[in-house]
Amino acid sequence: MFKRILVPVDGSENALRALKLAVEMQKMTGAELMTLTVFRHHSLLEASMSMVRPDDPQNLDDVMREHAKDIADTAKKAALEMGAQNPRSFVRNGPPARTIVKFSKEREVDLIVLGSRGLGDLEGYLLGSVSHKVTSLADCPVMVV
Amino acid sequence: MFKRILVPVDGSENALRALKLAVEMQKMTGAELMTLTVFRHHSLLEASMSMVRPDDPQNLDDVMREHAKDIADTAKKAALEMGAQNPRSFVRNGPPARTIVKFSKEREVDLIVLGSRGLGDLEGYLLGSVSHKVTSLADCPVMVV
Repeated sequence: MFKRILVPVDGSENALRALKLAVEMQKMTGAELMTLTVFRHHSLLEASMSMVRPDDPQNLDDVMREHAKDIADTAKKAALEMGAQNPRSFVRNGPPARTIVKFSKEREVDLIVLGSRGLGDLEGYLLGSVSHKVTSLADCPVMVV
Repeated sequence: MFKRILVPVDGSENALRALKLAVEMQKMTGAELMTLTVFRHHSLLEASMSMVRPDDPQNLDDVMREHAKDIADTAKKAALEMGAQNPRSFVRNGPPARTIVKFSKEREVDLIVLGSRGLGDLEGYLLGSVSHKVTSLADCPVMVV
């Protein structure tokens, strides 16, 4: 039924709930299971609006990438503990929803499972949440948990 | 995993795709399968804004209810042809998203499967689509197809 399941993870409780459901779906279908953690490049615009300016934006990018990798590793371990078979974790940078959808198309994902409220919650109220954007843009079914 | 699956159906192609996926989910999980068709009572406000006014609003309500029943019956037949076990179809009136979510809570549904674009599409652009509202309001996972 499903061959490739993608779970975007951002370290939130909701993402973990989504992962749990995705692992159950993998057990039923034998699908490949991937997690994706998206981080955003530090924007000079944001820096210019911030009262505290980093001396080295490149260094800040590295910190964010490392943080994303930590989240991805934690998700992979959690998936294994839930009984997932060969979960793989990926890290990408870009705007969350578009990056998730782009990745899902590249990998021919046929089910995206994601939490309804993650770390992008506050932004969600203003700009439309990540889950709403993903359900609008994705080519495949999206399960919002 | 899932015990009660609900598929809102409005006669659209997307609802049919959602139904197909829900039937597959039923085959994997043995869950109970329900479809729900929601129609709106004819509003006097809408009538007052329309150039063509019905002589008898009650009669118009009956027509809409009958139309909803037709859609529900067609969905049930389609589900059976797809191999569903004991699908049940329901008809309710009210605002689509809230009525779907209310029904899902009453029936302790643990998965809602629905099409991303149905007949409410144009309204969706203005007010937030039914699928977005349902994913926001539901207590259970929502699969948008």
